[in-house]
Amino acid sequence: MPLLSELADSSAAAIMPHFRAAYTVENKRSSGFDPVTVADRDAERAMRALIQKTHKDHGILGEEFGPENLEAEHVWVLDPIDGTRAFIAGLPTWGTLIGLRTLGIPSLGMMAQPYVGERYAGDGTSAWYEGPIGKKKLKTRPCAHMADAVVFTTTPALFTEPERAVYDAIERDVRMARYGTDCYGYCMVAAGHADAVIESGLQPYDIVALVPVIEGAGGVVTTWAGNPPADGGQILASGDPRLHDQLLERLSAAAL
Amino acid sequence: MPLLSELADSSAAAIMPHFRAAYTVENKRSSGFDPVTVADRDAERAMRALIQKTHKDHGILGEEFGPENLEAEHVWVLDPIDGTRAFIAGLPTWGTLIGLRTLGIPSLGMMAQPYVGERYAGDGTSAWYEGPIGKKKLKTRPCAHMADAVVFTTTPALFTEPERAVYDAIERDVRMARYGTDCYGYCMVAAGHADAVIESGLQPYDIVALVPVIEGAGGVVTTWAGNPPADGGQILASGDPRLHDQLLERLSAAAL
Repeated sequence: MPLLSELADSSAAAIMPHFRAAYTVENKRSSGFDPVTVADRDAERAMRALIQKTHKDHGILGEEFGPENLEAEHVWVLDPIDGTRAFIAGLPTWGTLIGLRTLGIPSLGMMAQPYVGERYAGDGTSAWYEGPIGKKKLKTRPCAHMADAVVFTTTPALFTEPERAVYDAIERDVRMARYGTDCYGYCMVAAGHADAVIESGLQPYDIVALVPVIEGAGGVVTTWAGNPPADGGQILASGDPRLHDQLLERLSAAAL
Repeated sequence: MPLLSELADSSAAAIMPHFRAAYTVENKRSSGFDPVTVADRDAERAMRALIQKTHKDHGILGEEFGPENLEAEHVWVLDPIDGTRAFIAGLPTWGTLIGLRTLGIPSLGMMAQPYVGERYAGDGTSAWYEGPIGKKKLKTRPCAHMADAVVFTTTPALFTEPERAVYDAIERDVRMARYGTDCYGYCMVAAGHADAVIESGLQPYDIVALVPVIEGAGGVVTTWAGNPPADGGQILASGDPRLHDQLLERLSAAAL
């Protein structure tokens, strides 16, 4: 998809001058200027301009600016910097999320990490990676038992009390849990390096771009209640459908 | 330091074929073969061979093999994969640590991240970065007040009960905390993107290589009791000496 790549290029050009740029809290206070917000807005503005130039009739839903033409058949769903806290701390685990929703269903998506030079993309039936170790098809790995699973969540502190209780119980029963991975964690599930991501409170622009990548690699994404994920909220993404069923059974106790 | 770079090159050549290689827990079980351990050992073996060829009289302390000639004036302190859990999950926040201890004091060090193509190195009086955004000198940033600090720890779950109590109190008072950063977090402090790392239970090979990088960039590394850090244990690394003093005051309650 050349447009996906062009959107990722234009976003990277706007963001990269601000990543790891020298700034301190003191700078921010004195200037009232937040470099992350500037990068986020410039990138979204650049992507919107490109979409409007090439696909006048498409809608756009972004994190930074208002929704446009959401009734269109095709709606682009954009988050220039997913993982703001990683970005602020200089870590390379944030990403630019570019998704397309067709008749309400995520149909195409990309996560681009311009510092590392990686892209993870998918169209729901196949998914691919391009980066430091070349180009390859993305494929989730088998994981039939929860006890073998490597699981990600951004931070358990974001869960409500009942959500936290079911999450903590799952964490005790899996092989390994990692925090602070944001969009990067979903790509590791798509690439077969990890088995599931469990999150709540997501916005549509946090998840739409990632659904075609995970599904295209052989995985499953739903809400904790097992419903379609395009509206965000409580999200479970798994590489193996058998693991997904086991995790859904646990999560259902706190599903909204 | 050409030897540091050669060591990092030889380590990367041994490790990279195993990073993100397709394997599952099932593979590991059936073959009794752990790709992380293989990568770790091959890399340490390659670095040891290079040191022994060029500096016959130097000692070596590594994570994987036994100590050699620790009474030498110069002792290399090696950890081929610091951040094993990140490595296993496909995340790019692990690194190869290559340190030199001269008369017991960390005198030279490098953290190399071969997937991203980054190196952070220092000699205690200066420090430098080379990677996707070019070459530059590393310099910590000012942070006079704990309330403004971005703080890393690998995971609070590793702390003892009294350590956890002082850490949790600090976490409540800082601007932001991030987990799971291993050696990468220290490099972000050296580069001025974050302000402190607080850890305990470290081995010498977890910290010796990072001391000359942080100190060379203007930061401070000590134990929680304020003693020299070369033996590991409870470690505090800060970008700003003023912040270091404030954090030491808090940590002293649990200092061994």
